[in-house]
Amino acid sequence: MSIIKGFSVKCKLCNRNAVIYQRHSGRHLCKRHFIDDIYKRVKYAVRKYNMIERDDRIAVALSGGKDSVALLHILVSLYGHRRDLEFVAITVDEGIAGYREETVEISRRITSELDVEHIIVSFREHCGLSLDEMVKKGDKKPCTYCGVLRKHLLNKASREAGATKLATGHNLDDETQTILLNFLQGDVERLARLIPQRIQEGLILRIKPLREIYEREVVTYNLLNDLPLALDECPYSHFPVRAMVRDFIYEFEEKYPGRKFSIMRSFERLIPCFKHEFPQKDLNRCQICGEPSSKEICQACKLLEEIKGR
Amino acid sequence: MSIIKGFSVKCKLCNRNAVIYQRHSGRHLCKRHFIDDIYKRVKYAVRKYNMIERDDRIAVALSGGKDSVALLHILVSLYGHRRDLEFVAITVDEGIAGYREETVEISRRITSELDVEHIIVSFREHCGLSLDEMVKKGDKKPCTYCGVLRKHLLNKASREAGATKLATGHNLDDETQTILLNFLQGDVERLARLIPQRIQEGLILRIKPLREIYEREVVTYNLLNDLPLALDECPYSHFPVRAMVRDFIYEFEEKYPGRKFSIMRSFERLIPCFKHEFPQKDLNRCQICGEPSSKEICQACKLLEEIKGR
Repeated sequence: MSIIKGFSVKCKLCNRNAVIYQRHSGRHLCKRHFIDDIYKRVKYAVRKYNMIERDDRIAVALSGGKDSVALLHILVSLYGHRRDLEFVAITVDEGIAGYREETVEISRRITSELDVEHIIVSFREHCGLSLDEMVKKGDKKPCTYCGVLRKHLLNKASREAGATKLATGHNLDDETQTILLNFLQGDVERLARLIPQRIQEGLILRIKPLREIYEREVVTYNLLNDLPLALDECPYSHFPVRAMVRDFIYEFEEKYPGRKFSIMRSFERLIPCFKHEFPQKDLNRCQICGEPSSKEICQACKLLEEIKGR
Repeated sequence: MSIIKGFSVKCKLCNRNAVIYQRHSGRHLCKRHFIDDIYKRVKYAVRKYNMIERDDRIAVALSGGKDSVALLHILVSLYGHRRDLEFVAITVDEGIAGYREETVEISRRITSELDVEHIIVSFREHCGLSLDEMVKKGDKKPCTYCGVLRKHLLNKASREAGATKLATGHNLDDETQTILLNFLQGDVERLARLIPQRIQEGLILRIKPLREIYEREVVTYNLLNDLPLALDECPYSHFPVRAMVRDFIYEFEEKYPGRKFSIMRSFERLIPCFKHEFPQKDLNRCQICGEPSSKEICQACKLLEEIKGR
């Protein structure tokens, strides 16, 4: 897929000039038909997985990065007119100096423009320490603290905001990388945990409306809609194994367009198997914070106790 | 893993000089302990999958290439003393000028040295045409004719030789490539068909005793045992997608040794799922040749009818 400028190829579906070439479908598309196609595929995924139901109040995890900004814009465009639905954006400020300020600001701006309720929760306020401070004090990798605590706070904040669903911006590239990575690592339990969850008390159901949309399409969508495109990578980001898998999938898709969909199809064909062989565990409540947890003390409290004891 | 020459690192398990470094286990091993390790892992795989049972008469598919030569040598070394077991080698001569003659000759030599009964069946004799002739006459890819007809002849010849099992030389590299390839292509049915078959009339159960042995280990085994090592590739061989997957797994394993085992573990964890969701179909008999087939006319007869009608 590439954005076409300076010469005029016609849209496959109408007489307008194409703005992109969609490799997986072999079609040139104009702005309108590209955006229509994105909407169609998001709606299809939403229906297929029952992501949005009548009277839902949907929390949108809004980091301010390209994916979550596109997600919020798409959800509001597609479902904003529905009287029975409500949206609330939740931004977690982990406290990463020189990186997070810009995306928090983007989050404020986009929620204000789209007229969506916006809640900001910070590590500093809820955990007593920013991520930068945790990294200095603790002995774990930044992504361990961030991954566990962000998930913890997103669930807590969504629940406290009365949400029935929590939407995240994971796109087709993210999902296929995670699927393949777990498969390659022999971690079938973790692979099975990627399937849509069942309702459990205290746990807000997570949905991924962009799971069928290529990362490149997300970027194109933002460009065509003049949406902010924060492309800076987190300074702590360091995933060498995932990067290797990402690069392979990228090359594979380049040579054989549509293969990311194939990976997703393989995974989906296995969902009934996963449900049968790896049923989701019943969750307890953490004895410290009361959040849902498979253990007596949740991972977030464990990390925080450990770091505060130092 | 690499063969060590010219300097002396000690074996991890004894005082002798190491001849190889086994990356996935992080061990240097002498000749004896390397071969012992191969034997141990083959026996483990054989037991895990019930590959060899009391009173079996085992046909070994012997192309004369490195894998099948190692397979025959290993099976005879491990189980040759068992009075209740019998072995018969079956070589299919597809008729590929300038390539097959050498490996057919190797097959004759190795079976004679190991004192194993040897049957040679040829495409020319059974199908009326050599593979070279089919390729000239037909419009399919060489690997289509060869794959279908070789499998067909191996089953027929094993059955006619009174075999209860048919052993093939597929190693860990072959298996993980096939697993990942099918997963990436979204072909879960084909992936499910890789699981051990159930007994069906006329179909000889296929077993893969080398499925836990790296390709490099097979080569090393042959070198250490002075076994012939025909490394020429078939002139018709052309699998660009598989080559891409092979190269990726190779690089991944180089960086993270043992990952081929992880892929195999993922696959094995899914076997109960596959059995449950994709049960093996009951086979009929082909109306032309009587071989087991899921259709009225088997694929082999279909290809042959088509090519002879030209």
